[in-house]
Amino acid sequence: MPKVKSQITISLDGYMAGPNQSEENPLGEGGEALHEWAFKLASFNEMHGRGEAGERGPSDDVLRSTQENLGAVVIGRNMFGPVRGPWPDEEWKGWWGDDPPFHCPVYVLTHYPRDPFELENGNSFHFVTDGIEKAIAGAKEAADDQDVSVGGASTLQQTIAAGLLDEIVVTQVPVILGGGVRLFDHLAPGAAEVELAEVVEGAEALHLTYRLR
Amino acid sequence: MPKVKSQITISLDGYMAGPNQSEENPLGEGGEALHEWAFKLASFNEMHGRGEAGERGPSDDVLRSTQENLGAVVIGRNMFGPVRGPWPDEEWKGWWGDDPPFHCPVYVLTHYPRDPFELENGNSFHFVTDGIEKAIAGAKEAADDQDVSVGGASTLQQTIAAGLLDEIVVTQVPVILGGGVRLFDHLAPGAAEVELAEVVEGAEALHLTYRLR
Repeated sequence: MPKVKSQITISLDGYMAGPNQSEENPLGEGGEALHEWAFKLASFNEMHGRGEAGERGPSDDVLRSTQENLGAVVIGRNMFGPVRGPWPDEEWKGWWGDDPPFHCPVYVLTHYPRDPFELENGNSFHFVTDGIEKAIAGAKEAADDQDVSVGGASTLQQTIAAGLLDEIVVTQVPVILGGGVRLFDHLAPGAAEVELAEVVEGAEALHLTYRLR
Repeated sequence: MPKVKSQITISLDGYMAGPNQSEENPLGEGGEALHEWAFKLASFNEMHGRGEAGERGPSDDVLRSTQENLGAVVIGRNMFGPVRGPWPDEEWKGWWGDDPPFHCPVYVLTHYPRDPFELENGNSFHFVTDGIEKAIAGAKEAADDQDVSVGGASTLQQTIAAGLLDEIVVTQVPVILGGGVRLFDHLAPGAAEVELAEVVEGAEALHLTYRLR
């Protein structure tokens, strides 16, 4: 059965981005340290159209599996770009330029309507203004019998709160960021029943797969 | 070489105690769910003088090892009791009654002076008003060639910030508490260099040993 899933990397202190995120520094101060485990992997290069060179091993397997069977993506507006308020310019097509790494339909949760558009290699962007349930439902329909991936702190928190997240791979990197955006925040007590399903030790990161109900 | 070490259990969202801690509810709302993995273990029963019955296995081994070679303990005033401000009554000897589970000298970090006292089975309490460095130094001296264990959120954070914590076993329980006291909080970016040294999967909890520098 298709899943609604996510893979997020956090610091020892639980942050998925460092403090003071900005257009110049979308990962926040120190946030790039969270992703060094991934940058050198073969699967990361493949996702970003840079050939198949790179390291293999447990972390590569995990990253590869999170991209498998992926039919659609749901993200928050922060992940799409730094713009706030009404869209000033529909020429700007997101952080990634002409060839985003998704290669499938992407649903962007926003308060401000915008027309959908298509880019190269199967990427299309759809803007959803009526809440997380509608965004997930649209993505599920677009994904057909494949999985839906969810990204962005607030979007993930809303997905968990709505009982719509099936599985999350939490990748823990042993650094202290000291501030920023926490993954598990703004959740009600017992927001989901959680089960630790798999533990994978990578060379630089620990990958914990949780199933939610 | 003796270590300054700690073992702390946290929720998926990083809390070591639930919201609204009180004298009646020292673990905070929902906080007891953090410790269910331990209550049934043989080592837990032994620590609390209840014989050697109980479950054995990976979690029991971890809990037992955190108690080995233990010469002294440093805790915050919250862990000693609910009293705030100057000590109103030196008759009150802490949460645990006449036979606390430490069985060694305990150094309590506080702003308010109080005379030390001794209880049964090797327990003694010493009140330190001049900061974490002095508390750790006193405990190290008392521990001689054994380890010092540190407990309590604020005390641990101060120990990490001062560069005095050598090792911490973070036990993760897959529950969402939604609020409370976070273990890794109020820390500066890069407050310590951290290395994941060991991963142990228990039946109900995951034990991650980190070494700090």
